[in-house]
Amino acid sequence: MVKLLALYRKPPDPKTFEEYYFKQHKPLAEKIPYLKAYKLYRVIGTPKGSTTDFYFLAELEFENREVMLKALRSPESLTAAKDVPQFARDIVSIFFVEETETPVSA
Amino acid sequence: MVKLLALYRKPPDPKTFEEYYFKQHKPLAEKIPYLKAYKLYRVIGTPKGSTTDFYFLAELEFENREVMLKALRSPESLTAAKDVPQFARDIVSIFFVEETETPVSA
Repeated sequence: MVKLLALYRKPPDPKTFEEYYFKQHKPLAEKIPYLKAYKLYRVIGTPKGSTTDFYFLAELEFENREVMLKALRSPESLTAAKDVPQFARDIVSIFFVEETETPVSA
Repeated sequence: MVKLLALYRKPPDPKTFEEYYFKQHKPLAEKIPYLKAYKLYRVIGTPKGSTTDFYFLAELEFENREVMLKALRSPESLTAAKDVPQFARDIVSIFFVEETETPVSA
C-alpha cells in the first residue's frame, strides 16, 4: 500500500486555509482516479516538550506505486496539483510513502 | 480516529537506522497499550520537481484523544519514548493528528 502525503505547515490564516481546502481543493482532489482512500487530519498537539509547525495532513491512498503514478498523470490530478499553490504555496511538503514491515537491508 | 505520527528525516546511515528501528525500537513501540494499529512507511519519492528530506514514518493509531493520552502515560510508552534519542536524536518530529471532515470554522 502506498500513500501520497501532503503535509502542511501552519498557514498565516488557518480559517481561510481550511475554508479553501474543503470548498475548493477537496472536490478537485476527490476526482483523482484510482484513489483508494482520501483522508484529512488536523494536527492537534505534540508530546510534552516538543514543538511542531505542522498544521494539516492529507493522505491519498493507492493500491501500489504503479497505480499511484498512473493516477498522478491523469488530467484530474494535474488540475488538483495546479490548485495547490493557490492556497498553500511555501507551506506544503508532498511526498510518497510505501508501507514496510522489514528493514531496507533485509 | 487519532494518530501519533513520528516523521523521520534522512538519517546519516539509513541502513543502521532501519536495523535499529526494526530490531530495537519496534518491539518496544508494539508494547504500548490501546494501540489500534501500528504501521511503518518508507518515503519512496516525491512529485516531479519537489524535494524532501523525509525518510521514514511511523503511525500509531488510537481510538480517540483520551485513549491516546492514557496510552502515552503508560510505562510501556515511556520506555519506547526514552529509546527514540538512541537512534533518532535531531531527525524526528512527533505530533498528533485527528481525522476531520469539515473545516475548523464549521
